[in-house]
Amino acid sequence: MPPFDVPEGDPFGPHNLPYGVFSPAGSTERTVGVRLGDHVLDAGAAARALGSPYASLLVQPSLNPLLAAGRTTWSDVRRALTAWVTVPAHQEAVEPFLHPLASVTLHLPFEVADYVDFYASEDHARNVGQIFRPDAADSLTPNWKHLPIGYHGRSGTVVVSGTDVVRPSGQRKAPADAAPVFGPSVRLDIEAEVGFVVGVPSERGRPVALGDFREHVFGLCLLNDWSARDIQAWEYVPLGPFLGKSFATSVSAWITPLDALEDARVAPPERTHELLPYLDDAADSGGEPGGYDLRISVAINGSVVSEPPFSTMYWTAAQQLAHMTVNGASLRTGDLYGSGTVSGPEPAQRGSLLELTWNGRDPLELPEGKRTFLEDGDVVTLSAWAPGPGGSRVGLGDVSGRIVASATE
Amino acid sequence: MPPFDVPEGDPFGPHNLPYGVFSPAGSTERTVGVRLGDHVLDAGAAARALGSPYASLLVQPSLNPLLAAGRTTWSDVRRALTAWVTVPAHQEAVEPFLHPLASVTLHLPFEVADYVDFYASEDHARNVGQIFRPDAADSLTPNWKHLPIGYHGRSGTVVVSGTDVVRPSGQRKAPADAAPVFGPSVRLDIEAEVGFVVGVPSERGRPVALGDFREHVFGLCLLNDWSARDIQAWEYVPLGPFLGKSFATSVSAWITPLDALEDARVAPPERTHELLPYLDDAADSGGEPGGYDLRISVAINGSVVSEPPFSTMYWTAAQQLAHMTVNGASLRTGDLYGSGTVSGPEPAQRGSLLELTWNGRDPLELPEGKRTFLEDGDVVTLSAWAPGPGGSRVGLGDVSGRIVASATE
Repeated sequence: MPPFDVPEGDPFGPHNLPYGVFSPAGSTERTVGVRLGDHVLDAGAAARALGSPYASLLVQPSLNPLLAAGRTTWSDVRRALTAWVTVPAHQEAVEPFLHPLASVTLHLPFEVADYVDFYASEDHARNVGQIFRPDAADSLTPNWKHLPIGYHGRSGTVVVSGTDVVRPSGQRKAPADAAPVFGPSVRLDIEAEVGFVVGVPSERGRPVALGDFREHVFGLCLLNDWSARDIQAWEYVPLGPFLGKSFATSVSAWITPLDALEDARVAPPERTHELLPYLDDAADSGGEPGGYDLRISVAINGSVVSEPPFSTMYWTAAQQLAHMTVNGASLRTGDLYGSGTVSGPEPAQRGSLLELTWNGRDPLELPEGKRTFLEDGDVVTLSAWAPGPGGSRVGLGDVSGRIVASATE
Repeated sequence: MPPFDVPEGDPFGPHNLPYGVFSPAGSTERTVGVRLGDHVLDAGAAARALGSPYASLLVQPSLNPLLAAGRTTWSDVRRALTAWVTVPAHQEAVEPFLHPLASVTLHLPFEVADYVDFYASEDHARNVGQIFRPDAADSLTPNWKHLPIGYHGRSGTVVVSGTDVVRPSGQRKAPADAAPVFGPSVRLDIEAEVGFVVGVPSERGRPVALGDFREHVFGLCLLNDWSARDIQAWEYVPLGPFLGKSFATSVSAWITPLDALEDARVAPPERTHELLPYLDDAADSGGEPGGYDLRISVAINGSVVSEPPFSTMYWTAAQQLAHMTVNGASLRTGDLYGSGTVSGPEPAQRGSLLELTWNGRDPLELPEGKRTFLEDGDVVTLSAWAPGPGGSRVGLGDVSGRIVASATE
């Protein structure tokens, strides 16, 4: 089949066009690619061949120059790419720069500046609260409905989909134990999340308003915030998660531009508490809904174990950005922030094994055996789609990772 | 006075030679400088003039290439620099590349990769525990003596000494209030710390052993972890500090190489709990003491308010590095980690206003008035020295910052 004839219904048709960084077969050189069906367009080479002014943004080893270019340029580049892959005269010119997806190597698509992780699903927060604080009057902490809780993670261990994840070792201590023990984590978990990628920086001391979200954020991707629950439980009081998370965070090789997700925008859940003005998206959202209707699937070794709906997230990405900068913290090109685990109200919509197995009490039954937490060799894959124009689907790039045995066993 | 005749007793004599990045008067170009007394040697220009092979590491806009070069090169470069500023024939050759310190602009000396902050002073942790959990049986959390508690901070807002700090705004809520309010922080504080700068990266999945500390860490500097106590108190449960810290972290313009601090090495305090092998510096320290005898001073508007002794820190920088990587988290060139607030056992040795004023109960009396927390216009300066060879002193570069009014008042 000719590469431009993407089948009807393919979630990576010309209405999608996510960006990544790839090396063609036999090369180690990195350059910007755009996915079209089962092919990758060498976007920089195509731009050069067509004499496009965007070649300098696209013949690059990372997306950072494009990310920094800003919304007007993002839209212009997307318009140009759409023409190249849909207008017959252009198709002919760019066809030599299409590579079969299976033949290329995909890389981490951008240089991660700061990485922040949020905690924005009410269902997730309530599940975790019930599991860890069963006697508390409210399963949410008192601040939960007033601000999007977040913390900084390790940007140096953000890895691209397909990268193996070494089981972390560390200290753990059950409440009944006299002293901590050391060893490979025995409660290795996933967190199914969506990551938002900042393009345009901001100045230190100047908060970014809710309504300026789309001026700063370029796009989104799936994100798996691998979590060692036993390490986390022992270390996290009082300063939060550290080694329980910092060993690896996997992101998709493809960043979906917000412009591809216009038809997926939805209103967030109704707010149960009055919000301070800087977070009040009823008052200051530019009149636009702040949620995204992303349908996520979590599979372990090919078996779907959960389907978390991103539309149920209480805090939106715009609110998270406004909160993250309200103290004057500046943004840099390449900042990445995770939504927090996406869990819906139904048991089969939970985005972590902690919740799916209710802290190990209710193992999952997989064809290969029972699972409470992950075993060595397990492959976890997140995938997702969103409603696109005219009833189409917009696919997000998968995030996949295989657990390999600890090096310090 | 000729620039090479640094006065006897000057803490920035040829026994010190810390590294920074500067622009000469009238230029915006950045290059590596080495401090000698009240002058800065343009190290790259000197290296070129002398035909040194290290010119390519030193004619650079940041210290990162030198940091990445590794311990053997660090020692070789230091030996060469020492010769250039002490051997008369070399002095003549490099004299044209000395700039008066007061004439140059100093920059953030390296590109910060990940920033981690620890909590390693037992006196600080006990003070904070007593202030915030007065009814707890133990002022330390149960994990404190078993692992160096730490968390990730925001690397994008690490700024060089001399940078103004905009008072952050945010949510705060006193326990008696019904709902949070928004506004500029009214409890803006400092944390006097020491920052460690990673040079040589490590591989993901491979912990760095205690004994390999000096193969990875290039040097240290003073660090002020500005903290908005009111924002922090409301946000930090359950995922740790976020906006209470992320608005700014100030570091010195000068990175002191570990090689300049050989005479400052001291044994850390006696360990009261048995340590797991990866943290046991009695067993695996290469036979070398892991502490540093750094004498810190904290001044507000020129009045010294505290003198925290770094030698009292319970956890060493080597233990922090081993802990930070024991889960397989990799290191990058430019990773920065803070020791945590340095507080000694005496009241006049406390490294934060939270402790010095006992959460505002006991204001400091300064010539310009009482202080509980910082007011707009206040200038905070950290300085320090360490014992050097033959009874000399090795000075660390100051960290200074002035509070300016919130932009969102």
